[in-house]
Amino acid sequence: MSPLFNKVVLIGVGQIGSSIGLNLIKRRLAREVIGVGRSVKNLKEAVHLRAIHRYRIGPPSDLSKDDLVILATPVRAIVQTLKTLSTKPLVIDVGSTKLSIIREASRRRLRFVGSHPIAGTERGGARAADSDLFRGKKCILTPTPFSSPGDRKKIESLWRGLGSEVVWMDAKRHDRLLAAVSHLPHAVAYSLVAAVDRLISIPRETKFALGGLKDTTRIAQSPPEMWHDIFLENKENVLLCLKRFKAELARLESFIRRDDSPRLMAQLKRSQAIRNKF
Amino acid sequence: MSPLFNKVVLIGVGQIGSSIGLNLIKRRLAREVIGVGRSVKNLKEAVHLRAIHRYRIGPPSDLSKDDLVILATPVRAIVQTLKTLSTKPLVIDVGSTKLSIIREASRRRLRFVGSHPIAGTERGGARAADSDLFRGKKCILTPTPFSSPGDRKKIESLWRGLGSEVVWMDAKRHDRLLAAVSHLPHAVAYSLVAAVDRLISIPRETKFALGGLKDTTRIAQSPPEMWHDIFLENKENVLLCLKRFKAELARLESFIRRDDSPRLMAQLKRSQAIRNKF
Repeated sequence: MSPLFNKVVLIGVGQIGSSIGLNLIKRRLAREVIGVGRSVKNLKEAVHLRAIHRYRIGPPSDLSKDDLVILATPVRAIVQTLKTLSTKPLVIDVGSTKLSIIREASRRRLRFVGSHPIAGTERGGARAADSDLFRGKKCILTPTPFSSPGDRKKIESLWRGLGSEVVWMDAKRHDRLLAAVSHLPHAVAYSLVAAVDRLISIPRETKFALGGLKDTTRIAQSPPEMWHDIFLENKENVLLCLKRFKAELARLESFIRRDDSPRLMAQLKRSQAIRNKF
Repeated sequence: MSPLFNKVVLIGVGQIGSSIGLNLIKRRLAREVIGVGRSVKNLKEAVHLRAIHRYRIGPPSDLSKDDLVILATPVRAIVQTLKTLSTKPLVIDVGSTKLSIIREASRRRLRFVGSHPIAGTERGGARAADSDLFRGKKCILTPTPFSSPGDRKKIESLWRGLGSEVVWMDAKRHDRLLAAVSHLPHAVAYSLVAAVDRLISIPRETKFALGGLKDTTRIAQSPPEMWHDIFLENKENVLLCLKRFKAELARLESFIRRDDSPRLMAQLKRSQAIRNKF
Protein backbone atom coordinates (compact mmCIF):
# COMPACT_ATOMS: atom_id res chain seq x y z
CA MET A 1 0.00 0.00 0.00
CA SER A 2 1.45 3.43 -0.91
CA PRO A 3 1.43 5.95 1.94
CA LEU A 4 -2.00 7.47 2.53
CA PHE A 5 -0.46 10.42 4.35
CA ASN A 6 2.77 12.38 4.38
CA LYS A 7 3.15 13.36 8.03
CA VAL A 8 0.94 11.93 10.77
CA VAL A 9 0.83 13.74 14.09
CA LEU A 10 -0.39 11.51 16.88
CA ILE A 11 -1.59 13.64 19.79
CA GLY A 12 -1.90 11.22 22.70
CA VAL A 13 0.26 8.09 22.70
CA GLY A 14 -1.74 5.72 24.94
CA GLN A 15 -2.88 2.21 24.02
CA ILE A 16 -5.07 3.30 21.08
CA GLY A 17 -2.74 6.00 19.73
CA SER A 18 0.37 3.86 19.87
CA SER A 19 -1.44 0.86 18.36
CA ILE A 20 -2.39 3.05 15.39
CA GLY A 21 1.22 4.26 15.18
CA LEU A 22 2.57 0.70 15.09
CA ASN A 23 0.33 -0.03 12.11
CA LEU A 24 1.10 3.23 10.27
CA ILE A 25 4.83 2.47 10.43
CA LYS A 26 4.65 -1.29 9.85
CA ARG A 27 2.26 -1.00 6.90
CA ARG A 28 3.93 2.18 5.54
CA LEU A 29 0.63 4.07 5.61
CA ALA A 30 2.49 7.30 6.51
CA ARG A 31 5.94 8.66 5.63
CA GLU A 32 6.50 9.99 9.14
CA VAL A 33 4.72 9.49 12.47
CA ILE A 34 5.30 12.13 15.15
CA GLY A 35 4.08 11.56 18.68
CA VAL A 36 2.92 14.38 20.93
CA GLY A 37 2.36 13.80 24.64
CA ARG A 38 3.13 14.92 28.16
CA SER A 39 5.15 12.00 29.49
CA VAL A 40 8.63 11.88 27.92
CA LYS A 41 9.10 8.39 29.40
CA ASN A 42 5.98 7.14 27.59
CA LEU A 43 7.02 8.89 24.34
CA LYS A 44 10.48 7.29 24.51
CA GLU A 45 8.85 3.92 25.03
CA ALA A 46 6.67 4.56 21.95
CA VAL A 47 9.79 5.34 19.85
CA HIS A 48 11.45 2.20 21.19
CA LEU A 49 8.39 0.10 20.23
CA ARG A 50 8.33 1.75 16.74
CA ALA A 51 4.87 3.19 17.39
CA ILE A 52 6.23 6.66 16.43
CA HIS A 53 9.36 7.81 14.58
CA ARG A 54 10.00 10.80 16.86
CA TYR A 55 8.23 12.94 19.40
CA ARG A 56 7.71 16.53 20.45
CA ILE A 57 6.02 18.10 23.44
CA GLY A 58 3.74 20.55 21.58
CA PRO A 59 1.94 19.94 18.24
CA PRO A 60 3.84 21.07 15.11
CA SER A 61 2.44 24.15 13.34
CA ASP A 62 3.78 23.47 9.81
CA LEU A 63 1.13 20.98 8.68
CA SER A 64 -0.10 20.78 5.08
CA LYS A 65 -3.16 19.29 3.36
CA ASP A 66 -1.43 15.90 2.88
CA ASP A 67 -0.90 15.49 6.62
CA LEU A 68 -3.13 13.86 9.20
CA VAL A 69 -3.65 14.78 12.83
CA ILE A 70 -4.96 11.97 15.08
CA LEU A 71 -6.40 13.07 18.40
CA ALA A 72 -6.00 10.16 20.81
CA THR A 73 -6.16 11.85 24.22
CA PRO A 74 -9.08 11.66 26.67
CA VAL A 75 -12.14 13.29 25.09
CA ARG A 76 -12.13 16.60 26.99
CA ALA A 77 -8.57 17.22 25.83
CA ILE A 78 -9.65 16.37 22.26
CA VAL A 79 -12.27 19.16 22.39
CA GLN A 80 -9.62 21.57 23.74
CA THR A 81 -7.04 20.61 21.08
CA LEU A 82 -9.60 21.12 18.29
CA LYS A 83 -9.69 24.82 19.24
CA THR A 84 -6.00 25.16 18.33
CA LEU A 85 -5.74 23.28 15.00
CA SER A 86 -5.24 24.67 11.51
CA THR A 87 -7.83 23.99 8.79
CA LYS A 88 -5.16 22.58 6.44
CA PRO A 89 -4.53 18.97 7.58
CA LEU A 90 -7.13 16.26 7.75
CA VAL A 91 -8.06 15.61 11.39
CA ILE A 92 -9.57 12.57 13.08
CA ASP A 93 -10.08 11.58 16.69
CA VAL A 94 -10.46 8.19 18.33
CA GLY A 95 -12.60 9.30 21.28
CA SER A 96 -15.38 7.26 22.91
CA THR A 97 -17.90 10.13 22.67
CA LYS A 98 -18.69 11.98 19.48
CA LEU A 99 -21.26 14.78 19.71
CA SER A 100 -19.28 17.48 21.54
CA ILE A 101 -16.21 16.68 19.41
CA ILE A 102 -18.12 16.86 16.12
CA ARG A 103 -19.72 20.15 17.19
CA GLU A 104 -16.39 21.78 18.01
CA ALA A 105 -14.76 20.51 14.80
CA SER A 106 -17.69 21.83 12.74
CA ARG A 107 -17.69 25.19 14.53
CA ARG A 108 -14.03 25.55 13.58
CA ARG A 109 -14.71 24.32 10.00
CA LEU A 110 -11.93 21.71 10.27
CA ARG A 111 -11.44 18.92 7.73
CA PHE A 112 -12.66 16.46 10.33
CA VAL A 113 -13.96 12.88 10.44
CA GLY A 114 -14.87 11.44 13.83
CA SER A 115 -13.61 7.91 14.49
CA HIS A 116 -14.33 5.52 17.30
CA PRO A 117 -12.48 2.22 17.01
CA ILE A 118 -14.40 -0.30 19.14
CA ALA A 119 -11.17 -1.73 20.47
CA GLY A 120 -8.87 -1.54 23.46
CA THR A 121 -8.54 -3.16 26.84
CA GLU A 122 -8.38 -1.86 30.41
CA ARG A 123 -4.62 -1.34 30.00
CA GLY A 124 -3.13 2.07 29.30
CA GLY A 125 0.04 3.66 27.88
CA ALA A 126 2.31 2.93 24.91
CA ARG A 127 3.47 -0.33 26.52
CA ALA A 128 -0.10 -1.65 25.98
CA ALA A 129 0.25 -1.11 22.19
CA ASP A 130 -0.81 -4.01 20.00
CA SER A 131 -0.62 -3.97 16.20
CA ASP A 132 -3.55 -6.41 16.02
CA LEU A 133 -5.78 -4.31 18.32
CA PHE A 134 -8.13 -3.21 15.50
CA ARG A 135 -8.19 -6.41 13.45
CA GLY A 136 -11.74 -7.70 12.98
CA LYS A 137 -13.12 -4.89 15.16
CA LYS A 138 -15.71 -2.31 14.22
CA CYS A 139 -14.75 1.34 13.76
CA ILE A 140 -17.61 3.83 13.90
CA LEU A 141 -17.07 6.91 11.71
CA THR A 142 -19.10 10.11 12.10
CA PRO A 143 -19.16 12.67 9.29
CA THR A 144 -18.98 16.46 9.61
CA PRO A 145 -20.12 19.07 7.07
CA PHE A 146 -16.54 20.13 6.33
CA SER A 147 -15.05 16.75 5.47
CA SER A 148 -15.09 16.10 1.72
CA PRO A 149 -16.04 12.73 0.16
CA GLY A 150 -12.33 12.32 -0.64
CA ASP A 151 -11.36 12.87 3.00
CA ARG A 152 -13.97 10.39 4.17
CA LYS A 153 -12.74 7.80 1.72
CA LYS A 154 -9.15 8.26 2.91
CA ILE A 155 -10.17 7.69 6.53
CA GLU A 156 -12.17 4.61 5.55
CA SER A 157 -9.03 3.27 3.83
CA LEU A 158 -6.97 4.01 6.93
CA TRP A 159 -9.24 1.96 9.22
CA ARG A 160 -9.66 -0.84 6.70
CA GLY A 161 -5.87 -0.91 6.40
CA LEU A 162 -5.76 -1.53 10.16
CA GLY A 163 -8.15 -4.48 9.73
CA SER A 164 -11.34 -2.82 10.98
CA GLU A 165 -14.88 -2.93 9.65
CA VAL A 166 -16.09 0.64 9.02
CA VAL A 167 -19.63 1.66 10.07
CA TRP A 168 -20.89 5.21 9.47
CA MET A 169 -23.13 6.54 12.21
CA ASP A 170 -24.65 9.84 13.25
CA ALA A 171 -22.92 11.30 16.35
CA LYS A 172 -26.13 11.50 18.41
CA ARG A 173 -26.95 7.85 17.82
CA HIS A 174 -23.34 6.89 18.55
CA ASP A 175 -23.38 8.61 21.94
CA ARG A 176 -26.74 7.08 22.93
CA LEU A 177 -25.67 3.61 21.85
CA LEU A 178 -22.22 3.69 23.46
CA ALA A 179 -23.70 5.01 26.72
CA ALA A 180 -25.73 1.79 26.94
CA VAL A 181 -23.18 -0.79 25.77
CA SER A 182 -20.03 0.72 27.26
CA HIS A 183 -20.39 3.77 29.52
CA LEU A 184 -23.09 2.25 31.74
CA PRO A 185 -21.17 -1.01 32.33
CA HIS A 186 -18.10 1.06 33.29
CA ALA A 187 -20.10 3.20 35.75
CA VAL A 188 -21.54 0.00 37.25
CA ALA A 189 -18.13 -1.70 37.51
CA TYR A 190 -16.45 1.30 39.20
CA SER A 191 -19.35 1.50 41.69
CA LEU A 192 -19.40 -2.24 42.36
CA VAL A 193 -15.71 -2.20 43.29
CA ALA A 194 -16.27 0.75 45.64
CA ALA A 195 -19.21 -1.06 47.29
CA VAL A 196 -17.31 -4.34 47.74
CA ASP A 197 -14.51 -2.37 49.39
CA ARG A 198 -16.98 -1.06 51.98
CA LEU A 199 -18.36 -4.56 52.63
CA ILE A 200 -15.30 -6.78 53.00
CA SER A 201 -11.57 -6.70 53.60
CA ILE A 202 -9.58 -6.60 50.34
CA PRO A 203 -7.57 -8.59 49.27
CA ARG A 204 -7.91 -10.98 52.24
CA GLU A 205 -11.55 -11.81 51.52
CA THR A 206 -11.63 -11.41 47.72
CA LYS A 207 -9.73 -14.72 47.74
CA PHE A 208 -13.18 -16.28 48.21
CA ALA A 209 -14.45 -14.72 45.01
CA LEU A 210 -14.90 -16.75 41.87
CA GLY A 211 -14.63 -15.43 38.30
CA GLY A 212 -17.94 -13.57 38.67
CA LEU A 213 -16.62 -10.72 40.79
CA LYS A 214 -13.45 -10.47 38.72
CA ASP A 215 -15.28 -10.39 35.39
CA THR A 216 -17.96 -7.92 36.49
CA THR A 217 -15.27 -5.51 37.71
CA ARG A 218 -12.39 -6.02 35.25
CA ILE A 219 -13.13 -2.75 33.42
CA ALA A 220 -12.85 -0.78 36.68
CA GLN A 221 -9.09 -1.05 35.99
CA SER A 222 -9.54 1.26 32.97
CA PRO A 223 -7.70 4.62 33.04
CA PRO A 224 -9.62 7.06 35.32
CA GLU A 225 -8.52 10.06 33.18
CA MET A 226 -10.24 8.56 30.15
CA TRP A 227 -13.46 7.63 31.94
CA HIS A 228 -13.75 10.90 33.84
CA ASP A 229 -13.95 12.67 30.48
CA ILE A 230 -16.35 10.17 28.89
CA PHE A 231 -18.83 10.37 31.80
CA LEU A 232 -18.80 14.18 31.71
CA GLU A 233 -18.87 14.62 27.90
CA ASN A 234 -21.72 12.12 27.49
CA LYS A 235 -23.46 13.18 30.68
CA GLU A 236 -27.10 13.24 29.50
CA ASN A 237 -26.98 9.78 27.97
CA VAL A 238 -25.01 8.32 30.88
CA LEU A 239 -27.52 9.72 33.38
CA LEU A 240 -30.42 8.32 31.35
CA CYS A 241 -28.78 4.87 31.31
CA LEU A 242 -28.11 5.03 35.04
CA LYS A 243 -31.77 5.88 35.61
CA ARG A 244 -32.87 2.77 33.69
CA PHE A 245 -30.36 0.62 35.49
CA LYS A 246 -31.45 1.89 38.92
CA ALA A 247 -35.07 1.12 38.00
CA GLU A 248 -34.17 -2.48 37.11
CA LEU A 249 -32.10 -2.85 40.28
CA ALA A 250 -35.01 -1.48 42.36
CA ARG A 251 -37.37 -4.01 40.75
CA LEU A 252 -35.08 -6.92 41.59
CA GLU A 253 -34.58 -5.59 45.09
CA SER A 254 -38.32 -5.25 45.74
CA PHE A 255 -38.96 -8.83 44.53
CA ILE A 256 -36.31 -10.08 46.96
CA ARG A 257 -37.57 -7.90 49.84
CA ARG A 258 -41.19 -8.99 49.37
CA ASP A 259 -40.28 -12.66 48.79
CA ASP A 260 -42.07 -12.34 45.47
CA SER A 261 -40.91 -15.68 44.14
CA PRO A 262 -42.79 -15.73 40.78
CA ARG A 263 -41.75 -12.21 39.76
CA LEU A 264 -38.16 -12.76 40.91
CA MET A 265 -37.96 -15.95 38.87
CA ALA A 266 -39.49 -14.24 35.83
CA GLN A 267 -37.00 -11.36 36.07
CA LEU A 268 -33.97 -13.69 36.30
CA LYS A 269 -35.24 -15.84 33.43
CA ARG A 270 -35.79 -12.73 31.31
CA SER A 271 -32.26 -11.48 31.97
CA GLN A 272 -30.76 -14.89 31.24
CA ALA A 273 -32.65 -15.12 27.93
CA ILE A 274 -31.56 -11.61 26.91
CA ARG A 275 -27.94 -12.24 27.83
CA ASN A 276 -27.94 -15.42 25.76
CA LYS A 277 -28.69 -13.23 22.72
CA PHE A 278 -25.70 -10.90 23.21
CA MET B 1 -7.26 -44.14 47.97
CA SER B 2 -9.66 -46.66 49.53
CA PRO B 3 -13.35 -45.70 49.30
CA LEU B 4 -14.33 -43.06 51.88
CA PHE B 5 -18.00 -44.02 51.54
CA ASN B 6 -20.07 -47.04 50.71
CA LYS B 7 -23.07 -45.58 48.91
CA VAL B 8 -23.22 -41.90 47.87
CA VAL B 9 -26.63 -40.45 47.04
CA LEU B 10 -26.34 -37.33 44.93
CA ILE B 11 -29.56 -35.31 45.17
CA GLY B 12 -29.32 -32.82 42.34
CA VAL B 13 -27.22 -33.68 39.29
CA GLY B 14 -26.36 -30.26 37.89
CA GLN B 15 -22.86 -28.94 37.13
CA ILE B 16 -21.61 -29.16 40.74
CA GLY B 17 -23.31 -32.45 41.62
CA SER B 18 -22.22 -34.27 38.49
CA SER B 19 -18.67 -32.89 38.76
CA ILE B 20 -18.47 -34.39 42.26
CA GLY B 21 -19.87 -37.66 40.91
CA LEU B 22 -17.26 -37.83 38.14
CA ASN B 23 -14.54 -37.56 40.80
CA LEU B 24 -16.13 -40.05 43.21
CA ILE B 25 -16.23 -42.68 40.47
CA LYS B 26 -12.90 -41.87 38.79
CA ARG B 27 -10.98 -41.73 42.07
CA ARG B 28 -12.94 -44.64 43.64
CA LEU B 29 -13.92 -42.54 46.64
CA ALA B 30 -17.30 -44.32 46.81
CA ARG B 31 -18.42 -47.87 46.00
CA GLU B 32 -21.64 -46.70 44.41
CA VAL B 33 -22.94 -43.31 43.27
CA ILE B 34 -26.71 -42.96 42.86
CA GLY B 35 -28.16 -39.83 41.26
CA VAL B 36 -31.55 -38.42 42.24
CA GLY B 37 -33.19 -35.75 40.11
CA ARG B 38 -36.30 -34.67 38.27
CA SER B 39 -35.11 -34.75 34.65
CA VAL B 40 -34.66 -38.32 33.41
CA LYS B 41 -32.87 -36.94 30.34
CA ASN B 42 -30.31 -35.21 32.54
CA LEU B 43 -29.92 -38.29 34.77
CA LYS B 44 -29.33 -40.49 31.70
CA GLU B 45 -26.72 -38.02 30.50
CA ALA B 46 -25.04 -38.23 33.93
CA VAL B 47 -24.91 -42.04 33.71
CA HIS B 48 -23.50 -41.77 30.19
CA LEU B 49 -20.78 -39.36 31.38
CA ARG B 50 -20.01 -41.68 34.34
CA ALA B 51 -20.96 -39.00 36.87
CA ILE B 52 -23.33 -41.52 38.53
CA HIS B 53 -23.63 -45.32 38.37
CA ARG B 54 -27.44 -45.32 38.33
CA TYR B 55 -30.34 -43.09 39.14
CA ARG B 56 -33.71 -43.05 40.84
CA ILE B 57 -36.46 -40.45 41.02
CA GLY B 58 -36.90 -40.37 44.81
CA PRO B 59 -34.15 -40.65 47.45
CA PRO B 60 -33.45 -44.18 48.76
CA SER B 61 -34.59 -44.90 52.33
CA ASP B 62 -32.16 -47.72 53.18
CA LEU B 63 -29.11 -45.62 54.03
CA SER B 64 -26.61 -46.61 56.71
CA LYS B 65 -23.92 -44.81 58.69
CA ASP B 66 -21.26 -45.52 56.02
CA ASP B 67 -23.25 -43.75 53.33
CA LEU B 68 -23.15 -40.11 52.28
CA VAL B 69 -25.97 -37.90 51.01
CA ILE B 70 -24.87 -34.89 48.95
CA LEU B 71 -27.48 -32.17 48.52
CA ALA B 72 -26.70 -30.37 45.27
CA THR B 73 -30.01 -28.77 44.35
CA PRO B 74 -30.86 -25.05 44.57
CA VAL B 75 -30.69 -23.97 48.25
CA ARG B 76 -34.43 -23.80 49.02
CA ALA B 77 -34.82 -27.41 47.89
CA ILE B 78 -31.85 -28.32 50.10
CA VAL B 79 -33.68 -26.94 53.14
CA GLN B 80 -36.81 -28.89 52.15
CA THR B 81 -34.90 -32.15 51.59
CA LEU B 82 -33.22 -31.85 55.01
CA LYS B 83 -36.69 -32.21 56.58
CA THR B 84 -37.01 -35.72 55.08
CA LEU B 85 -33.60 -37.29 55.78
CA SER B 86 -32.68 -40.01 58.27
CA THR B 87 -30.09 -39.33 61.00
CA LYS B 88 -28.03 -42.37 59.96
CA PRO B 89 -25.97 -41.28 56.90
CA LEU B 90 -23.52 -38.42 56.86
CA VAL B 91 -25.02 -35.47 54.94
CA ILE B 92 -23.38 -32.54 53.18
CA ASP B 93 -24.69 -29.86 50.88
CA VAL B 94 -22.93 -27.73 48.26
CA GLY B 95 -25.20 -24.69 48.47
CA SER B 96 -24.12 -21.07 48.05
CA THR B 97 -25.80 -19.98 51.30
CA LYS B 98 -25.24 -21.64 54.65
CA LEU B 99 -27.15 -20.23 57.62
CA SER B 100 -30.69 -21.46 56.89
CA ILE B 101 -29.31 -24.86 55.84
CA ILE B 102 -27.18 -25.26 58.96
CA ARG B 103 -30.13 -24.27 61.14
CA GLU B 104 -32.46 -26.85 59.60
CA ALA B 105 -29.82 -29.60 59.75
CA SER B 106 -29.14 -28.81 63.43
CA ARG B 107 -32.83 -28.69 64.29
CA ARG B 108 -33.15 -32.19 62.83
CA ARG B 109 -29.95 -33.34 64.61
CA LEU B 110 -28.52 -34.68 61.34
CA ARG B 111 -24.89 -35.77 60.94
CA PHE B 112 -24.30 -32.70 58.79
CA VAL B 113 -21.35 -30.66 57.51
CA GLY B 114 -22.08 -27.65 55.31
CA SER B 115 -19.89 -27.36 52.19
CA HIS B 116 -19.59 -24.58 49.68
CA PRO B 117 -17.13 -25.34 46.90
CA ILE B 118 -16.10 -21.98 45.41
CA ALA B 119 -16.28 -23.39 41.92
CA GLY B 120 -18.60 -23.56 38.94
CA THR B 121 -19.39 -21.50 35.88
CA GLU B 122 -22.55 -19.97 34.46
CA ARG B 123 -23.32 -23.30 32.73
CA GLY B 124 -25.84 -25.76 34.18
CA GLY B 125 -26.78 -29.45 33.98
CA ALA B 126 -24.81 -32.70 33.92
CA ARG B 127 -23.40 -31.87 30.49
CA ALA B 128 -21.45 -29.00 32.19
CA ALA B 129 -19.68 -31.54 34.46
CA ASP B 130 -15.92 -31.18 34.73
CA SER B 131 -13.73 -33.47 36.83
CA ASP B 132 -11.22 -30.63 37.30
CA LEU B 133 -13.87 -28.15 38.50
CA PHE B 134 -12.68 -28.17 42.12
CA ARG B 135 -8.94 -28.45 41.54
CA GLY B 136 -7.06 -25.58 43.22
CA LYS B 137 -10.34 -24.00 44.36
CA LYS B 138 -11.37 -23.19 47.89
CA CYS B 139 -14.12 -25.15 49.61
CA ILE B 140 -15.69 -23.49 52.64
CA LEU B 141 -16.90 -25.95 55.31
CA THR B 142 -19.31 -24.97 58.09
CA PRO B 143 -19.64 -27.17 61.17
CA THR B 144 -22.85 -28.14 63.00
CA PRO B 145 -23.22 -29.37 66.60
CA PHE B 146 -24.21 -32.87 65.44
CA SER B 147 -21.27 -33.63 63.18
CA SER B 148 -18.50 -35.53 64.99
CA PRO B 149 -14.77 -34.76 64.58
CA GLY B 150 -14.57 -38.00 62.58
CA ASP B 151 -17.32 -36.88 60.21
CA ARG B 152 -15.66 -33.52 59.71
CA LYS B 153 -12.34 -35.18 58.94
CA LYS B 154 -14.00 -37.45 56.37
CA ILE B 155 -15.57 -34.47 54.59
CA GLU B 156 -12.23 -32.64 54.62
CA SER B 157 -10.67 -35.72 52.98
CA LEU B 158 -13.42 -35.78 50.38
CA TRP B 159 -12.82 -32.18 49.28
CA ARG B 160 -9.04 -32.53 49.42
CA GLY B 161 -9.44 -35.66 47.28
CA LEU B 162 -11.20 -33.47 44.71
CA GLY B 163 -8.24 -31.07 44.73
CA SER B 164 -9.76 -28.30 46.86
CA GLU B 165 -8.30 -26.23 49.66
CA VAL B 166 -10.53 -26.58 52.74
CA VAL B 167 -11.36 -23.50 54.85
CA TRP B 168 -13.59 -23.76 57.92
CA MET B 169 -15.90 -20.82 58.44
CA ASP B 170 -18.86 -19.90 60.59
CA ALA B 171 -22.15 -19.90 58.59
CA LYS B 172 -22.98 -16.28 59.43
CA ARG B 173 -19.65 -15.02 58.22
CA HIS B 174 -19.93 -17.19 55.11
CA ASP B 175 -23.29 -15.69 54.15
CA ARG B 176 -22.13 -12.11 54.73
CA LEU B 177 -18.92 -12.66 52.76
CA LEU B 178 -20.52 -14.48 49.83
CA ALA B 179 -23.25 -11.84 49.57
CA ALA B 180 -20.52 -9.27 48.85
CA VAL B 181 -18.21 -11.25 46.56
CA SER B 182 -20.81 -13.29 44.67
CA HIS B 183 -24.50 -12.54 45.30
CA LEU B 184 -24.17 -8.77 44.79
CA PRO B 185 -22.27 -9.11 41.47
CA HIS B 186 -24.97 -11.51 40.25
CA ALA B 187 -27.80 -9.13 41.23
CA VAL B 188 -25.93 -6.34 39.42
CA ALA B 189 -25.31 -8.41 36.29
CA TYR B 190 -28.95 -9.57 35.99
CA SER B 191 -30.12 -5.94 36.41
CA LEU B 192 -27.57 -4.56 33.96
CA VAL B 193 -28.76 -6.95 31.25
CA ALA B 194 -32.39 -5.96 31.88
CA ALA B 195 -31.47 -2.26 31.67
CA VAL B 196 -29.47 -2.64 28.44
CA ASP B 197 -32.46 -4.44 26.93
CA ARG B 198 -34.62 -1.36 27.65
CA LEU B 199 -32.04 0.99 26.13
CA ILE B 200 -31.03 -0.63 22.84
CA SER B 201 -32.05 -3.26 20.33
CA ILE B 202 -30.50 -6.68 21.06
CA PRO B 203 -28.65 -8.34 19.36
CA ARG B 204 -28.46 -5.77 16.51
CA GLU B 205 -26.79 -3.11 18.64
CA THR B 206 -24.82 -5.28 21.10
CA LYS B 207 -22.54 -5.88 18.10
CA PHE B 208 -21.03 -2.52 19.01
CA ALA B 209 -20.16 -3.71 22.49
CA LEU B 210 -16.60 -4.58 23.41
CA GLY B 211 -15.55 -7.12 26.04
CA GLY B 212 -16.69 -4.82 28.85
CA LEU B 213 -20.42 -5.41 28.44
CA LYS B 214 -19.90 -9.13 27.89
CA ASP B 215 -17.68 -9.56 30.93
CA THR B 216 -19.84 -7.49 33.29
CA THR B 217 -22.91 -9.54 32.33
CA ARG B 218 -21.51 -13.07 31.75
CA ILE B 219 -22.86 -14.36 35.07
CA ALA B 220 -26.42 -13.27 34.13
CA GLN B 221 -26.41 -16.53 32.14
CA SER B 222 -26.36 -18.47 35.42
CA PRO B 223 -29.34 -20.76 36.18
CA PRO B 224 -32.32 -18.62 37.39
CA GLU B 225 -33.58 -21.46 39.65
CA MET B 226 -30.30 -21.40 41.55
CA TRP B 227 -30.11 -17.62 41.94
CA HIS B 228 -33.77 -17.19 42.84
CA ASP B 229 -33.12 -19.37 45.90
CA ILE B 230 -29.81 -17.72 46.83
CA PHE B 231 -31.29 -14.21 46.75
CA LEU B 232 -34.25 -15.28 48.93
CA GLU B 233 -32.31 -17.47 51.39
CA ASN B 234 -29.64 -14.81 51.93
CA LYS B 235 -32.09 -11.93 51.73
CA GLU B 236 -30.83 -9.75 54.62
CA ASN B 237 -27.21 -9.81 53.48
CA VAL B 238 -28.12 -9.34 49.82
CA LEU B 239 -30.29 -6.32 50.66
CA LEU B 240 -27.51 -4.84 52.77
CA CYS B 241 -25.04 -5.23 49.89
CA LEU B 242 -27.50 -3.71 47.43
CA LYS B 243 -27.90 -0.74 49.76
CA ARG B 244 -24.13 -0.15 49.78
CA PHE B 245 -23.92 -0.55 46.05
CA LYS B 246 -26.79 1.90 45.44
CA ALA B 247 -25.04 4.43 47.70
CA GLU B 248 -21.83 4.16 45.64
CA LEU B 249 -23.77 4.42 42.39
CA ALA B 250 -25.59 7.50 43.69
CA ARG B 251 -22.26 9.13 44.60
CA LEU B 252 -20.86 8.54 41.12
CA GLU B 253 -24.08 9.78 39.56
CA SER B 254 -24.10 12.98 41.60
CA PHE B 255 -20.48 13.74 40.68
CA ILE B 256 -21.38 13.35 36.99
CA ARG B 257 -24.58 15.38 37.31
CA ARG B 258 -22.87 18.25 39.13
CA ASP B 259 -19.79 18.17 36.86
CA ASP B 260 -17.77 17.63 40.02
CA SER B 261 -14.54 16.85 38.21
CA PRO B 262 -12.20 16.47 41.25
CA ARG B 263 -14.54 14.15 43.18
CA LEU B 264 -15.36 12.12 40.07
CA MET B 265 -11.67 11.64 39.33
CA ALA B 266 -10.95 10.70 42.96
CA GLN B 267 -13.77 8.13 42.95
CA LEU B 268 -12.57 6.49 39.71
CA LYS B 269 -8.96 6.44 40.91
CA ARG B 270 -10.04 4.88 44.21
CA SER B 271 -12.01 2.14 42.42
CA GLN B 272 -9.15 1.44 40.03
CA ALA B 273 -6.68 1.13 42.94
CA ILE B 274 -9.02 -1.21 44.86
CA ARG B 275 -9.65 -3.37 41.79
CA ASN B 276 -5.92 -3.72 41.20
CA LYS B 277 -5.72 -5.41 44.64
CA PHE B 278 -8.35 -8.10 43.87
